[in-house]
Amino acid sequence: MDVTISEVGPRDGLQSIERTMSTTLKVAWIRALAASGLREIEVGSFVSPRLLPQMADCGDVVRALHSDTENPPAFDILALVPNLKGAEAAIAAGVTRVSVPISASETHSRRNINRTTDEAIAEFARICAHHREHGGVSECTGVEAGISTAFGCTYEGVVDEDRVIDIAVKLAEAGAESVGLSDTTGYANPAQVKRLFTRLDAEIGERAGGAHFHNTRGQGLANVVAALEAGVRTFDSSQAGLGGCPYAPGASGNIVTEDLVFLLEAMGLDTGIRMDALLAARDVLREALPGEPLYGNVPDAGLPLGFRYAHEAA
Amino acid sequence: MDVTISEVGPRDGLQSIERTMSTTLKVAWIRALAASGLREIEVGSFVSPRLLPQMADCGDVVRALHSDTENPPAFDILALVPNLKGAEAAIAAGVTRVSVPISASETHSRRNINRTTDEAIAEFARICAHHREHGGVSECTGVEAGISTAFGCTYEGVVDEDRVIDIAVKLAEAGAESVGLSDTTGYANPAQVKRLFTRLDAEIGERAGGAHFHNTRGQGLANVVAALEAGVRTFDSSQAGLGGCPYAPGASGNIVTEDLVFLLEAMGLDTGIRMDALLAARDVLREALPGEPLYGNVPDAGLPLGFRYAHEAA
Repeated sequence: MDVTISEVGPRDGLQSIERTMSTTLKVAWIRALAASGLREIEVGSFVSPRLLPQMADCGDVVRALHSDTENPPAFDILALVPNLKGAEAAIAAGVTRVSVPISASETHSRRNINRTTDEAIAEFARICAHHREHGGVSECTGVEAGISTAFGCTYEGVVDEDRVIDIAVKLAEAGAESVGLSDTTGYANPAQVKRLFTRLDAEIGERAGGAHFHNTRGQGLANVVAALEAGVRTFDSSQAGLGGCPYAPGASGNIVTEDLVFLLEAMGLDTGIRMDALLAARDVLREALPGEPLYGNVPDAGLPLGFRYAHEAA
Repeated sequence: MDVTISEVGPRDGLQSIERTMSTTLKVAWIRALAASGLREIEVGSFVSPRLLPQMADCGDVVRALHSDTENPPAFDILALVPNLKGAEAAIAAGVTRVSVPISASETHSRRNINRTTDEAIAEFARICAHHREHGGVSECTGVEAGISTAFGCTYEGVVDEDRVIDIAVKLAEAGAESVGLSDTTGYANPAQVKRLFTRLDAEIGERAGGAHFHNTRGQGLANVVAALEAGVRTFDSSQAGLGGCPYAPGASGNIVTEDLVFLLEAMGLDTGIRMDALLAARDVLREALPGEPLYGNVPDAGLPLGFRYAHEAA
């Protein structure tokens, strides 16, 4: 595989819509996604069920995925955790890796998790310490950090690039397996993306993580092209762009997995994913959430005549 | 200006929908587009009114744009012509440049204009000869060629890249002021775009023209980023992505001018276009075609907080 797509629909998509999908349907959708060749799936958030009732069954989802001991998950089970308590629950439930968002914008950090950025970094260090102590006896191989509002903030506007890189270095020093950058607000542009990821790689090398882009202003895949130029090889995306952006009716929040797979494979970059199986997972999603808007162009337009996957073209 | 956006909505958009806009409304919309700072607008096609009744008034539109002699058009008036007859009419009406599509796919060429590619190149040479003879006494400064199906064909699938470059060289030799490449089918990917435009530049240098991308598979702006890397500085786009793609409900045919302006300006590339005036032109379009789907994310999401145009950031 040349590029890893980390499917975040069951987490970012489902927590962005009002309806709650049942545990059984979540597991069915996640298994269908995995059957398409996805090697990483973020299956939920370990957060307060008062804040996000859609995610209240996250532990059950993880345990259900492990329940078929004859067919253990052939993919990495990721979960988002905002704090140590969430990380403890996620690791106990059996996730492969936990992912922790830390906001580069002070205002966003305070409003989102009621902590300053420094406090969030300190909490991240505690999560890493907990993992070092208890990770060995669990399935959990590491703790990932994702810097949210890395490309701009709806409260603060421009976010200083030096500050983003500074935070990334601190998170790597705290023990992050990887530090990714998130365009939480759909503010990013390709020039900025190339610049920041190039700096990230220069500063933290092999701990430089993936890109999480939103498509709020239609720039998601354009930013992927720029990130590829900067050497990024892991991208978050959401099947059907689930969880449409409230600022842009008709625009998906996350970039659409189906369109991203086409982009990468057409460019000759192997993702290990097959479109027919991915569209079968889309059907599972459609049946699970009748009437929910499903985004993406490739599902409607189809693959081009004569299309070859990267592994066939090589 | 760092990048020229060539607005093709009044041609490619209006000829792709069934309704016909009146001459008066076309002129009002085109004037509103020009007021946003657009320096190139393709205002229509000089084709048989039996084939495209929406374009029957193309000469009237051009003459109306010239009618206010105290305020002559501050933009280049482009028109698409499929043959010598159309070019004669366009030049007589007062266009600044004519644009001629030549298909790289033999099958597409035969089905679209009932000519082989070689016959289309020969007709293009006749158009250039006509322009050399009569252009001097008209407004028309040159003849542009656009190679359609340059990135793939819905009949033939893959289109040979050597063949595309070979056609480009022949068109340049025939007298093309510029030779652009069109992704008529929405097949293009960024790796291919970068490769082909780099070769185009190497082969015909200053006659290498712009990029015309469709967003059929959601890859339009991603392809723009790749074309920028290859040195392309002229891009076709359509306000509101007018003329939605029949293969992909909800997907625009052309890339959306509003989203393209944001992409380029955010990257620090001056387009000379202002979003507020561009959105005012979108309102003119909305009133002219009530109920017609208007695409694009930036019009809904707005510009980011703290956004600066390239000329302000420089």
